[in-house]
Amino acid sequence: MSTSAVILLSGGMDSTTCLAWARAQGMTCHTLAFDYGQRHRSELAAAAAISTALGAASHRVISIDPHQFAGSALTDANIAIPHAPGNGIPVTYVPARNTIFLAMALGYAEVLAAQSIVIGVNAIDYSGYPDCRPAFIAAFRQLAALATRAGVEGQPIAILAPLQDLSKAEIVALGEKLGVDFARTVSCYQADEQGRACGQCDACRLRHQGFIDAGRPDVTRYD
Amino acid sequence: MSTSAVILLSGGMDSTTCLAWARAQGMTCHTLAFDYGQRHRSELAAAAAISTALGAASHRVISIDPHQFAGSALTDANIAIPHAPGNGIPVTYVPARNTIFLAMALGYAEVLAAQSIVIGVNAIDYSGYPDCRPAFIAAFRQLAALATRAGVEGQPIAILAPLQDLSKAEIVALGEKLGVDFARTVSCYQADEQGRACGQCDACRLRHQGFIDAGRPDVTRYD
Repeated sequence: MSTSAVILLSGGMDSTTCLAWARAQGMTCHTLAFDYGQRHRSELAAAAAISTALGAASHRVISIDPHQFAGSALTDANIAIPHAPGNGIPVTYVPARNTIFLAMALGYAEVLAAQSIVIGVNAIDYSGYPDCRPAFIAAFRQLAALATRAGVEGQPIAILAPLQDLSKAEIVALGEKLGVDFARTVSCYQADEQGRACGQCDACRLRHQGFIDAGRPDVTRYD
Repeated sequence: MSTSAVILLSGGMDSTTCLAWARAQGMTCHTLAFDYGQRHRSELAAAAAISTALGAASHRVISIDPHQFAGSALTDANIAIPHAPGNGIPVTYVPARNTIFLAMALGYAEVLAAQSIVIGVNAIDYSGYPDCRPAFIAAFRQLAALATRAGVEGQPIAILAPLQDLSKAEIVALGEKLGVDFARTVSCYQADEQGRACGQCDACRLRHQGFIDAGRPDVTRYD
């Protein structure tokens, strides 16, 4: 029997590579995106297109009250997106975002009777977000085993983070090996309506450096 | 300085007693309810009224996509609410509900800079729900310390479960001591539009037995 998985798919480089990885493992993939009042909508359009292109079995978008997330530069137009990385936790940090996304994915996985959740966090280039660290993922894994019917009555739902120990350059290399078209993916914090990147925010810098370090051309569409 | 807390308030006996408890501790209370497509709406009306009556500083309702929770008798009209307790996890179990509620509360607490989250789970009468067990709460406490800016930069947000070791009878006694009017609270899984209880579901049985065991009159409004 083939296994099935819920893939957290933002439409960026990392989550797209996760989807390609899960497909290559033979998993039936149910992609899940969140509409939480992101500044740009092209991220959601990219996620839907990528889900289809990479052969996911289904794609869902869950809406989350954007007021929930007041106080982050990613959702609040009054806070400027920084052009240079600072120290500590960046202003683009969204309160409890990955906790909420994983909690939603856990409920969805249980409804689908999926065996796994795949999330594209990576520790090396995690940009200071507390909820991208391996310790956070390990804690959620523990929680998931206790939180659900699946965990109590049978096998806990696995929380897979296949990119956890990879650098951006290694993610570029893995994605290319798996046939990912990175031109389709949108990583930029402030992409325009067509999904073209600013080239200046933290996400753009990390991504661009990843292509350079991997010795690959940067196929990102910039504005 | 007074501390502030996010109180998960469903409008039932347990969460209402939690709010009264937090107020008695001198906490500034921000109550949080979830609209997740419950069968009856009187629960949400009760929560809003109780929040005001018990002097909370604010009340919010977060809507969650009800399709997320397909597969539970509490949200799916095609699954009958059982009239007698069965063995194991009940069909009224909602996938990952408390994980999702706590995750949302965590984000909200971080935005409010609240020090605590208060949840009314109790282990003795937990009815078989995996996400009401002390081990689940302990795991979420660990996660919360790792998941947020507050946990990394200062004091983690505390996850308080003041009813954890209390029986329903002890909750009745505590609530009455704190001045809770239990006639306002709605615990029933299938209350009518006016908040009148069925008297037959698990929640009604546990609640009724709580009044009996506490030696107090059952002030529940039955239909």
